[in-house]
Amino acid sequence: MMMQEVIVRYIERPQLDHPLLIEGLPGVGNVGKLAAEHLVEELKLKKFAELFSKYLPPQVMVGDDGTIRLVRHELFYGRDIGKGMDIVVLAGDFQGLTPEGQYELANSAIGIAKDLGVDRIFTLGGYGVIKLMDEPGVLGAVTEPALRKDMEPLGVIFRRGEPSSGIIGASGILLGLGELEGIPGICLMGETSGYFVDPRSARSVLKVLAAYIGLELDYSKLDDKARQIDEITSRIKENIEDEVEEGKDDLRYFG
Amino acid sequence: MMMQEVIVRYIERPQLDHPLLIEGLPGVGNVGKLAAEHLVEELKLKKFAELFSKYLPPQVMVGDDGTIRLVRHELFYGRDIGKGMDIVVLAGDFQGLTPEGQYELANSAIGIAKDLGVDRIFTLGGYGVIKLMDEPGVLGAVTEPALRKDMEPLGVIFRRGEPSSGIIGASGILLGLGELEGIPGICLMGETSGYFVDPRSARSVLKVLAAYIGLELDYSKLDDKARQIDEITSRIKENIEDEVEEGKDDLRYFG
Amino acid sequence: MMMQEVIVRYIERPQLDHPLLIEGLPGVGNVGKLAAEHLVEELKLKKFAELFSKYLPPQVMVGDDGTIRLVRHELFYGRDIGKGMDIVVLAGDFQGLTPEGQYELANSAIGIAKDLGVDRIFTLGGYGVIKLMDEPGVLGAVTEPALRKDMEPLGVIFRRGEPSSGIIGASGILLGLGELEGIPGICLMGETSGYFVDPRSARSVLKVLAAYIGLELDYSKLDDKARQIDEITSRIKENIEDEVEEGKDDLRYFG
Amino acid sequence: MMMQEVIVRYIERPQLDHPLLIEGLPGVGNVGKLAAEHLVEELKLKKFAELFSKYLPPQVMVGDDGTIRLVRHELFYGRDIGKGMDIVVLAGDFQGLTPEGQYELANSAIGIAKDLGVDRIFTLGGYGVIKLMDEPGVLGAVTEPALRKDMEPLGVIFRRGEPSSGIIGASGILLGLGELEGIPGICLMGETSGYFVDPRSARSVLKVLAAYIGLELDYSKLDDKARQIDEITSRIKENIEDEVEEGKDDLRYFG
Repeated sequence: MMMQEVIVRYIERPQLDHPLLIEGLPGVGNVGKLAAEHLVEELKLKKFAELFSKYLPPQVMVGDDGTIRLVRHELFYGRDIGKGMDIVVLAGDFQGLTPEGQYELANSAIGIAKDLGVDRIFTLGGYGVIKLMDEPGVLGAVTEPALRKDMEPLGVIFRRGEPSSGIIGASGILLGLGELEGIPGICLMGETSGYFVDPRSARSVLKVLAAYIGLELDYSKLDDKARQIDEITSRIKENIEDEVEEGKDDLRYFG
Repeated sequence: MMMQEVIVRYIERPQLDHPLLIEGLPGVGNVGKLAAEHLVEELKLKKFAELFSKYLPPQVMVGDDGTIRLVRHELFYGRDIGKGMDIVVLAGDFQGLTPEGQYELANSAIGIAKDLGVDRIFTLGGYGVIKLMDEPGVLGAVTEPALRKDMEPLGVIFRRGEPSSGIIGASGILLGLGELEGIPGICLMGETSGYFVDPRSARSVLKVLAAYIGLELDYSKLDDKARQIDEITSRIKENIEDEVEEGKDDLRYFG
Repeated sequence: MMMQEVIVRYIERPQLDHPLLIEGLPGVGNVGKLAAEHLVEELKLKKFAELFSKYLPPQVMVGDDGTIRLVRHELFYGRDIGKGMDIVVLAGDFQGLTPEGQYELANSAIGIAKDLGVDRIFTLGGYGVIKLMDEPGVLGAVTEPALRKDMEPLGVIFRRGEPSSGIIGASGILLGLGELEGIPGICLMGETSGYFVDPRSARSVLKVLAAYIGLELDYSKLDDKARQIDEITSRIKENIEDEVEEGKDDLRYFG
Repeated sequence: MMMQEVIVRYIERPQLDHPLLIEGLPGVGNVGKLAAEHLVEELKLKKFAELFSKYLPPQVMVGDDGTIRLVRHELFYGRDIGKGMDIVVLAGDFQGLTPEGQYELANSAIGIAKDLGVDRIFTLGGYGVIKLMDEPGVLGAVTEPALRKDMEPLGVIFRRGEPSSGIIGASGILLGLGELEGIPGICLMGETSGYFVDPRSARSVLKVLAAYIGLELDYSKLDDKARQIDEITSRIKENIEDEVEEGKDDLRYFG
């Protein structure tokens, strides 16, 4: 018998009040994934479903204790968040491997969202820019022009014709397929160099989302991660400079 | 649940009288796409259906106002065009990504064409040639020999064994699958260098189609686009020559 | 609606008496395709079915008269051939594009073969060897050891463990899937350099098959083709030698 | 009609008592395949099912006697093995060609396992390490922490966060999909250089498994294979050294 496109394993079937769906999967700078995971951790959201699929890699992850877990997407929920919103967070190990897989996984998530009564979708991701910043900006895209008015007061930037190549992957088609089902949505893209995982960009994106939800978030864990990345990158930088320096010495020696 | 191969969203279900189906999707020199879009704009055709598919890229386009649209194919119609024909135009953002996707999308379009009573198909595209021309020729291919008699008086060229590799993509298989359903069809291929989008080649193709339909078309917008492309290409050319010239100077300086 | 894996268009539904199925599709040296097409032409076999598939290239071929034909597989039949056998020939433009497509197309052909009462399958192909020969040998492989006794007296070679990588593509899996349905089969592989289409190798393969069927075949058309290929290859060879010769002159001039 | 994802041909439908499923398919160093095949041969296990699939290569293997066999997976069983266990072994020619195929084949095997009442799964494979060893270690991963207690006394190594990239392919997802069906499992990975097929690593893996089952196994055939590989590799090594040596001579000659 053919395997289902997406296998949904429910842990619980929560009743929610017009929840917000927030997606954060791996991508540029892992901005969306970092943001979604931070949200799950800080708000102590409850996992209610796991999605497995033949469109994800045929792979299990091995944890520190030697236990394996099949790669998956996970759905979490929280009630009465911020100024009283219910939210659902979609996180996971990988995006779909093929275009067809991307559509099947997004289609499955939208089906679940409809069942839960979701009436707005936020997709979170990174937007590659040349220059690194301490407080990365957040670019927006919306399914209907009216939604810009909700986002612009929160500092979201709408730059004419950007991203010029559109939005590729889960953050794009979740909004596209959502719109086909009558669910409006917003994509928040944190500016990032894209060279490293970027917790600062994730923080910028979360600040917009938190302001929208009326939520006070503690970003110290993201800040810790940012400092760790800084240390690694500056160590790499030093090594390169040392090598260049040594190279100079060598040249002098021979010069 | 598995996502449908092609999702058709109807805006309207027009009753048409033996309409002509005209296809123009992206391809060599974007000739077909330019021609189809010009037709839609000039004849103020009405959109009646949108096609979404997991065989298109998992991508949304972002408009100048920051609103997104899932990539799609679109169907337009017009009544009583030229000497009194009903027409249907198929345009879109992308062709199917895989061979299987190409077939599924074409199969879906042919299904709709049958429902609408389409009894002739024109597919529009570009044909790569070495030499650039001001009035590109239009090469033809037909599903049955008798159709050549309709096309040759309009200046369509039939060159023995060309295109030698056949016709690949939507313009080919729409005719092939149409023929399986008993709908005859014609492919019009405008000669083009294929290096740039080619509005002049689109104009050549449209002139043949307009003559067939008995239609007066205004080509000024295509001509404007052609001039814009000319400017860009001549600027590129100048830059290259300037660099060569500067290079000469440098050489002289050292010579 | 999803397109069928393989669309079968019947022209006729012949009643046949335990026919032999003979497959010859494009492959190494095009040996199988040349052999199958020669058989169809010489025996004036009748086409009774055409197979179209989303696993073939999304492409139409353009004939000398400018008419297009969707790429396809074709089935032909002949009654009372040689010492009184009914035969069915499977020919076509391409093999399936993907492994999955190969299986689907072969599965479809085997389904038709079962309906027709086929009780033996011959698949024809090329076998790449280093040395070119005037009378290429024919290597065999069989679904059951007893079939070797039918083939060895006809000069078919069984070399221990060859082909060492097995048989890839239609000629292999038609036998494999046939065997699952209880239809025994034989693969005949004509030795060929594989650099050019090889009518001599096709002739060798057909000679074995003709002897098995008790059939007198005229090979003059294949011999003509072989001479044409010889001319082309010797012209290429001369050009290369001329260039080498000219190169020598140049060297002498400078020497 | 579409071909089934996986075609199961049953030779026999054995009644087994809570059997152990042991998987060994081709992979790094072919460790799993060598181990599974050794087990089948030494314990004279009985084949009871063959699996064919469009997700395996479209290929037949040719045996020494010129007979072909479609590539496949095979299932064997044995009763009352070691201290009284029933076991099922899954072996085969290839793993699934695509991620989707990997999932479909594993899904099919897990379905059969459930029907047979399997209540524990062992998957066998290789783990690439830099250094070659005479007695390669065996790394483990488990679906639930409690299983480590069964494995550690048998010498299985659990190294924090290894393999760092998880387990890719059949050995991983059989455990992952098994866990979804409530069947616990263990992956045993023999350390191997991965450059050659590695019978010594297969022996290490089998020793753990045999200890678990309470089974005395004769490893002489694996040891023979290991010596053959040693001879080949040392001959290759000598050739390289000879060439280097000759190179030195040449240099001296010219020096």
